[in-house]
Amino acid sequence: MTHPSSHTNSPSQERRTVVVVGAGPAGLTVGNILRAADVDCVVLETESRRFIETRPRAGVIEEWAVRGLRQRGLADSLTARAQVHSACEFRFGGERFRFDYSELTDHHHYVYPQPLLVTDLVREYADVRGGDIRFGVRDVTLHDLESDPAVSYLDPTTGERHVLHCEFVAGCDGARGVTRDAIPDGRVRIARQDHGIAWLALLAEAPPSSDCVLFGVHPNGFAGHMARSPEVTRYYLQCPPGDDPESWSHDRVWGELRERLGAAGAPPLTEGRLTEKRVLDMHDYVVEPMVFGRLFLAGDAGHLTAPIAAKGMNLALHDAFLLGDALAAHATKGDDTGLEGYSHACLRRVWDYQEFSHFLSGIYHGTASGDPFLAGTSLARLRRLFTSRAAATAFAEQYLGAAAAF
Amino acid sequence: MTHPSSHTNSPSQERRTVVVVGAGPAGLTVGNILRAADVDCVVLETESRRFIETRPRAGVIEEWAVRGLRQRGLADSLTARAQVHSACEFRFGGERFRFDYSELTDHHHYVYPQPLLVTDLVREYADVRGGDIRFGVRDVTLHDLESDPAVSYLDPTTGERHVLHCEFVAGCDGARGVTRDAIPDGRVRIARQDHGIAWLALLAEAPPSSDCVLFGVHPNGFAGHMARSPEVTRYYLQCPPGDDPESWSHDRVWGELRERLGAAGAPPLTEGRLTEKRVLDMHDYVVEPMVFGRLFLAGDAGHLTAPIAAKGMNLALHDAFLLGDALAAHATKGDDTGLEGYSHACLRRVWDYQEFSHFLSGIYHGTASGDPFLAGTSLARLRRLFTSRAAATAFAEQYLGAAAAF
Repeated sequence: MTHPSSHTNSPSQERRTVVVVGAGPAGLTVGNILRAADVDCVVLETESRRFIETRPRAGVIEEWAVRGLRQRGLADSLTARAQVHSACEFRFGGERFRFDYSELTDHHHYVYPQPLLVTDLVREYADVRGGDIRFGVRDVTLHDLESDPAVSYLDPTTGERHVLHCEFVAGCDGARGVTRDAIPDGRVRIARQDHGIAWLALLAEAPPSSDCVLFGVHPNGFAGHMARSPEVTRYYLQCPPGDDPESWSHDRVWGELRERLGAAGAPPLTEGRLTEKRVLDMHDYVVEPMVFGRLFLAGDAGHLTAPIAAKGMNLALHDAFLLGDALAAHATKGDDTGLEGYSHACLRRVWDYQEFSHFLSGIYHGTASGDPFLAGTSLARLRRLFTSRAAATAFAEQYLGAAAAF
Repeated sequence: MTHPSSHTNSPSQERRTVVVVGAGPAGLTVGNILRAADVDCVVLETESRRFIETRPRAGVIEEWAVRGLRQRGLADSLTARAQVHSACEFRFGGERFRFDYSELTDHHHYVYPQPLLVTDLVREYADVRGGDIRFGVRDVTLHDLESDPAVSYLDPTTGERHVLHCEFVAGCDGARGVTRDAIPDGRVRIARQDHGIAWLALLAEAPPSSDCVLFGVHPNGFAGHMARSPEVTRYYLQCPPGDDPESWSHDRVWGELRERLGAAGAPPLTEGRLTEKRVLDMHDYVVEPMVFGRLFLAGDAGHLTAPIAAKGMNLALHDAFLLGDALAAHATKGDDTGLEGYSHACLRRVWDYQEFSHFLSGIYHGTASGDPFLAGTSLARLRRLFTSRAAATAFAEQYLGAAAAF
């Protein structure tokens, strides 16, 4: 972190209230809230608009998050187009167990792929609310976060360095972004956890084989099934960390899916060409606090949750609501309570979701762990969802992010 | 395992239907059930009657277990003298959190120290129902479990070997007994788990400092408080495995207890002389199946649960009810369904309790694990008990062993 004036070819200088680094769900939501409050801001993004609008990502949005987007005028398309889910199905021991979480909690899951949400948020920010967003920027660098912050970057067309002086930086640039790394060593604590497993993420040109999400818990490993469209289905197969996707041939993939998702009375899986095969290593981290000087981290920049429980985008939106509202309150009313309580308020939900993600990971992966004790306890945990209404309700609340208090 | 006839000094021979090895809660309950059904049996115990009637052990009995004892005529003293508990208190972050499990579930905990229960069961078996029980036996050995079973032992006074031929052996001789070891290698699977921590178990000549059980969750480690009588209190302090009890001086013990159980508004702890200091290493195992030939394991012989959730005696009673009833059904009606389903039926509850014990261990010990991720998730797990009624109810059910279906 160098002072921007130390650059030799005197860069172009601007002043903004907030620089948002990263145009994912978190950054774009913060930007939209700031534009709605007439707070001067700019969003920087290293990728192209087309890239972020098509990048495949998760698609589960929790009810409170939909409500939060709606309250901020950001949910029109989502409300019109999202699927509403009310149940999922576990398969284990050769049997099917339907888990009707909406019957237990009166809450639902919304399924709306992240690229669609990002497309909505970019359009609203840039085209409707007239927000300043700069795509394809290079070499984003943070400066003087504890005193007089600035963010500089290289213009992709001119190659010139621009400096944006600001009051606040919103670090929304994800797990591999630069904002978290701008914090000097030892000034925040990063708690890490590695699940020691991976998922092979697959997209198949095949109609869904069930009307709901399927989770297969099997001695060979976890398998998942999620409808993406009438023609496309996402599948997951647990695999060793660092596994080579190319070792998973068409026949091997479908053989394992049939094995792990097999159950008495279940219709056969519909096969199709595999158009995506990626290995996702499962690990998590949490940055505490999520603030350093004038830098506020949001979303994956501040905490990564393995996609086991589909919580990442929801946490990003939670952070973004709090950060956008807090920055707006500071800028428009001089009220700093939101900024002061930001990290604490985010982290309550972050830790709760991390805990649930690990609980669920135990259910999904214990059976295939090779450890007979873990296999026994994880099966007990799973069975309890179908023998105790209290346990099922508690699980459903967490599955839906619908627990009362954070 | 040798055939008893291979002994050179021809031993005295008897024939019984069932030999019960071990006079703990499991063995004595099986014996009492068999006596009530007029099934010919004998109980062998290596210790003296006085020893087993005074050996300090756990004292929490779950409602279904009290009901099971009552149905078998074994709960008269217990019903008259046990304390009924309806709540416990967690202390963390310097605050007190009362957890009223009876309000959540309509169920209670009975507190009745194991030595009292054992005293009741011995009296009923030996003095009321006229059961044959032999104390102080030495070198108990099992023979021919897959064909023509027998149990032999050395008489403590004559030094002679006695052989008891039988149809069935009930292995109720605890974690360090001989019955489990009589199973040849590879014929059952033993799943093991080590918590990597220990508890220093203390008895203090001091009145209880609270009307209910206290659990302190603290960065220094877990601490527990349980009233034993108006003059005696049991305390626990988490410590490293294999720790030397003598390294825990009076001052160190009371200093740590005050620290770990400290909370705003809590009355000070009442100090007293420490009359017991033992280090309990926390580990678990489960034998699957709990049957080998004509040997049926029950209680700690078949599964050990670290005392974290006070489940051991309850599982022993659950096994004993099933085994006693199954043996009686076989002997009196020729009905073998109970014996055939015995292991499966026991293990459902065993695995469920093991799972809860590990869940609770996470709550108690995560904060002091030195792993910031585990500290964060375990605190989230604990906080959820006080923010979600569904989570609290599910926890209470498991704490009380009151979940519906096994």
